[in-house]
Amino acid sequence: MSKLVITAAITGGVHVPSLSPHFPYLPDMVIEQAVGAAEAGAAVLHIHARNPVDGRPSSDIGVFRDIAAAIQSRCDAALCITTGGGLGMTPEERVRPIGILRPELASLNAGSMNFAIHRLADKITAPKFDWELPYLRSTEDLIFPNTFRSMGAFTEAMQAVGTKPELEIYDVGMINNVKYLIDTGVLKAPVYLQFVMGILGGIPAAPENLLFMVETARKQIGPENFVWSCCAAGKAQMATVLLAMTMGGNVRVGLEDNLYMGPGRLAKSSAEQVEKVVRIAHELSYEIATPDEARAILGLKGNTKVGWAEAA
Amino acid sequence: MSKLVITAAITGGVHVPSLSPHFPYLPDMVIEQAVGAAEAGAAVLHIHARNPVDGRPSSDIGVFRDIAAAIQSRCDAALCITTGGGLGMTPEERVRPIGILRPELASLNAGSMNFAIHRLADKITAPKFDWELPYLRSTEDLIFPNTFRSMGAFTEAMQAVGTKPELEIYDVGMINNVKYLIDTGVLKAPVYLQFVMGILGGIPAAPENLLFMVETARKQIGPENFVWSCCAAGKAQMATVLLAMTMGGNVRVGLEDNLYMGPGRLAKSSAEQVEKVVRIAHELSYEIATPDEARAILGLKGNTKVGWAEAA
Amino acid sequence: MSKLVITAAITGGVHVPSLSPHFPYLPDMVIEQAVGAAEAGAAVLHIHARNPVDGRPSSDIGVFRDIAAAIQSRCDAALCITTGGGLGMTPEERVRPIGILRPELASLNAGSMNFAIHRLADKITAPKFDWELPYLRSTEDLIFPNTFRSMGAFTEAMQAVGTKPELEIYDVGMINNVKYLIDTGVLKAPVYLQFVMGILGGIPAAPENLLFMVETARKQIGPENFVWSCCAAGKAQMATVLLAMTMGGNVRVGLEDNLYMGPGRLAKSSAEQVEKVVRIAHELSYEIATPDEARAILGLKGNTKVGWAEAA
Amino acid sequence: MSKLVITAAITGGVHVPSLSPHFPYLPDMVIEQAVGAAEAGAAVLHIHARNPVDGRPSSDIGVFRDIAAAIQSRCDAALCITTGGGLGMTPEERVRPIGILRPELASLNAGSMNFAIHRLADKITAPKFDWELPYLRSTEDLIFPNTFRSMGAFTEAMQAVGTKPELEIYDVGMINNVKYLIDTGVLKAPVYLQFVMGILGGIPAAPENLLFMVETARKQIGPENFVWSCCAAGKAQMATVLLAMTMGGNVRVGLEDNLYMGPGRLAKSSAEQVEKVVRIAHELSYEIATPDEARAILGLKGNTKVGWAEAA
Repeated sequence: MSKLVITAAITGGVHVPSLSPHFPYLPDMVIEQAVGAAEAGAAVLHIHARNPVDGRPSSDIGVFRDIAAAIQSRCDAALCITTGGGLGMTPEERVRPIGILRPELASLNAGSMNFAIHRLADKITAPKFDWELPYLRSTEDLIFPNTFRSMGAFTEAMQAVGTKPELEIYDVGMINNVKYLIDTGVLKAPVYLQFVMGILGGIPAAPENLLFMVETARKQIGPENFVWSCCAAGKAQMATVLLAMTMGGNVRVGLEDNLYMGPGRLAKSSAEQVEKVVRIAHELSYEIATPDEARAILGLKGNTKVGWAEAA
Repeated sequence: MSKLVITAAITGGVHVPSLSPHFPYLPDMVIEQAVGAAEAGAAVLHIHARNPVDGRPSSDIGVFRDIAAAIQSRCDAALCITTGGGLGMTPEERVRPIGILRPELASLNAGSMNFAIHRLADKITAPKFDWELPYLRSTEDLIFPNTFRSMGAFTEAMQAVGTKPELEIYDVGMINNVKYLIDTGVLKAPVYLQFVMGILGGIPAAPENLLFMVETARKQIGPENFVWSCCAAGKAQMATVLLAMTMGGNVRVGLEDNLYMGPGRLAKSSAEQVEKVVRIAHELSYEIATPDEARAILGLKGNTKVGWAEAA
Repeated sequence: MSKLVITAAITGGVHVPSLSPHFPYLPDMVIEQAVGAAEAGAAVLHIHARNPVDGRPSSDIGVFRDIAAAIQSRCDAALCITTGGGLGMTPEERVRPIGILRPELASLNAGSMNFAIHRLADKITAPKFDWELPYLRSTEDLIFPNTFRSMGAFTEAMQAVGTKPELEIYDVGMINNVKYLIDTGVLKAPVYLQFVMGILGGIPAAPENLLFMVETARKQIGPENFVWSCCAAGKAQMATVLLAMTMGGNVRVGLEDNLYMGPGRLAKSSAEQVEKVVRIAHELSYEIATPDEARAILGLKGNTKVGWAEAA
Repeated sequence: MSKLVITAAITGGVHVPSLSPHFPYLPDMVIEQAVGAAEAGAAVLHIHARNPVDGRPSSDIGVFRDIAAAIQSRCDAALCITTGGGLGMTPEERVRPIGILRPELASLNAGSMNFAIHRLADKITAPKFDWELPYLRSTEDLIFPNTFRSMGAFTEAMQAVGTKPELEIYDVGMINNVKYLIDTGVLKAPVYLQFVMGILGGIPAAPENLLFMVETARKQIGPENFVWSCCAAGKAQMATVLLAMTMGGNVRVGLEDNLYMGPGRLAKSSAEQVEKVVRIAHELSYEIATPDEARAILGLKGNTKVGWAEAA
């Protein structure tokens, strides 16, 4: 039985500072919580950049590089750089950091969909920053754009620098999109699938939905051609990743996905969620993959070949 | 057991004239084939407008009205007007015909997705019209945009004139989108779902996928809150609608969905496909709904209250 | 795409003479309807023996031989001899015909279960024969016994004479039973599975159940290790076998499974059901396997090597 | 969200003394481990009787009564008395304790099946008792007999004394058996279903199988008409019950189902497994039902109305 790869998604582009006093939105907070998550057992750290002043999602390459270099100087987790970007970024802006930073992993969103998080605005009474409420509310009209042409371009940009795409799957049809990219020779198998459940606009987080997605991937892509992980937004997070674990999948947790530990109890950091996953994994006799074991499982090039290493 | 409602989708926005000599792209051809489909047993006719000169998808209200009035003068099928529009149309352009034409039914696409039909271009060697190949090829970069905000606006525009939304479901998450529209009080239940399978970008046409979608709708929306139909693109068309039929669903066929009758054999019209459905339905002892029976099943207002009737 | 193998189950052990004036319970009737089914398109004929006087299920080898020889003299369909037997027969009695008759195919029931057909008794007001009502009613207390030991013995008895087992699968767990027989080296792959749905005591005939069984077989046995067919008891018969057909499976029909053609309309013979299957298969552009094509698909030895051929 | 009902199955009829030094096969051991399991958090204790000398499965009413009275004198867990019996017992022998002991709960096995545990014999080199190996090996030829007639008789016997049937479901078709008992007016809804997975002869313990069973029960019996729990044999135990927990089900653990805590590590008692379930449940923010809360959830009469209370 393969060891369990735990990914921690530290800050993402969904949550805003006012939603939790523990939410890391400045570079130092992101770095600190990322290192903490790695120490708790995360072999992969999923990183977004945010504006160093007000925490607004950003794709500033300098911010990415500084965060990545700082984290990497303190732990050897594999870093996964997002290409999801923030609202209104063009595909070109979103993929640009990859060619320069050449991370071990980067997210590659496997299709277009509505990505609606406007209901989060209702939870905020006194926003810390002016941008937060308009940002959230605008997503009622938001499409997360990932056309076949841009998926192809992202794939090529990643594979050109040895970056493994982490294919973010938000609905069943996106598995067929991945198959299309493989069949047309663009995307190299084996691939790494991250099932992202519970975003309004995608498939909800429910046990039958995860099973159906995994079954679909087995049929369409072939069990030998993919490794998978799962994460879920909001309160279904922990039950969903535990299901993934019992099905032989890997898991992602972190404050990008869920700000809570349980009903009414905010998480102090992604590390706290990673620790819970580790405890449950041990209850089930699973072993936790180290970063190097995760590299072997996911097929990563190693962290000596990334942009921030060479810059250092 | 409820009678079977057969919908014929006459021309759509996917296929282009060069793909089949039988493809109806001019208003007279659309009218003729629509009437033929109704005579063959279709209770609902799904109508798109195309440019009267070159057959390019259009949302010209005059064209819609002329087609609708001509069809209705010759048969009493219920007409469903698309709001899918054509490439590059704004949501406002797409929904505008509804307020004026006030049809019994209109399509309401239940989410955003890639809608990629560029591979059809490979089948055309000598295009009849200049627009065809660029039109098809551009869809490699196409998103079919249906945000929550525009879905809400479309719903309100339809319900304001007594038009029943036909919710086009292309993937599992879209069922949750429909649930969201119901839960937020925008969309009135019971709803009418059309599962559209096999578009690249959405869920493929496979038996397990249709079953999973229907099961999901039962769980999320409640069996008493929806009536459903199914259609499938391409060669899976007939097997998929036959499955739908055996599951108690209604079916849509027509040249919008599939240009063929079987391997290598082009359909001469949508009527030919409707006739096949009728034959198989009779083999299974299903009865075919008349237009008025379909109105009762789907909850339609009747064709005396539509825009083209009053204009006449 | 493989051609469609149609099996006709002529008389079985479930129905009794009083249920239909067309039900073949005497040897001549069985022979006549079997030949008719083959002429209509059945490549395989599934044969039970019944008492030549009163039509009570029997495992008399002489009756089996006479029927088989008579059918075979008039058509070249492959014959499948039951080992299901009748009520109260011991496993030894049930398997004994196989060693002597050495048919191309024989049924091998893949597990024990309740097999309850007592409700059929309520449909009979004036029974033709004394045994009918007690026979049906006794099944409220009936177990169809097929232990692992007897399944092993049946398998060996069949394989010793070149008879291919047709594994009758009545519920999901029985697929695992088949896997056990393969894994322990008793049963040789590829195997031939017949999903028998709708018997009270087994899994009901519903689309999701057939899909789940086929999926389970793919996962547990491997898609390359089995060929499958499907039949269903009672009024779900035709819809279920059509689903099987659209999923790429083979089908069994016949008066053993269902006495009707549609609501309130008795079938005159198994041939009438076969003809319906052939018509629908043609609507779906499927080709019907001849007996020799069926032999290639199922892996049968041919009808020159059967017991009744050598006796002749 | 309902609280979690944990059942501990202390000794069962499957395992034999030589399989683990911790296995409780004498009355005092059963009593001690049952009380320990209740103290650890089990609200229900599932009890089998075994011969007080050699631990062979028995249905001796005196043994049942002594064990039940002793356990109940030390804890207020609800007791569930088996009617599964041991090899070769008649249905009459198996159900007889119910009328006399009148427990709060009793198992009612929902169909007939092969129940094959012969492979356990391979793990024993030096049996403690002569009966163990023949007992295990004989199950290669064993049918667990539960016909419709005997299920009806068991149901009536239980309902006559206020004992709630715990319906043991080993395969998908058995859910339909339960529906039949409800539809024919024998069994009163709401019912309590225990999905027992992983017995050779029944459905294997796999996530998709549990989901399918729960879905099937929702469709056939109606979500409002049943409460459910799940247990699984062997090493899949903990992952399966964790899945059940995340699906909103209740869980059963204990040495009847699995002798281990993890790979190569024997459980010292059922309590050790209950403790693990409690820890994981707390990680997921589930609350554990007390015996009285379990009585309310399952619809039990209370432990003042049982045979051993009145005898005391």
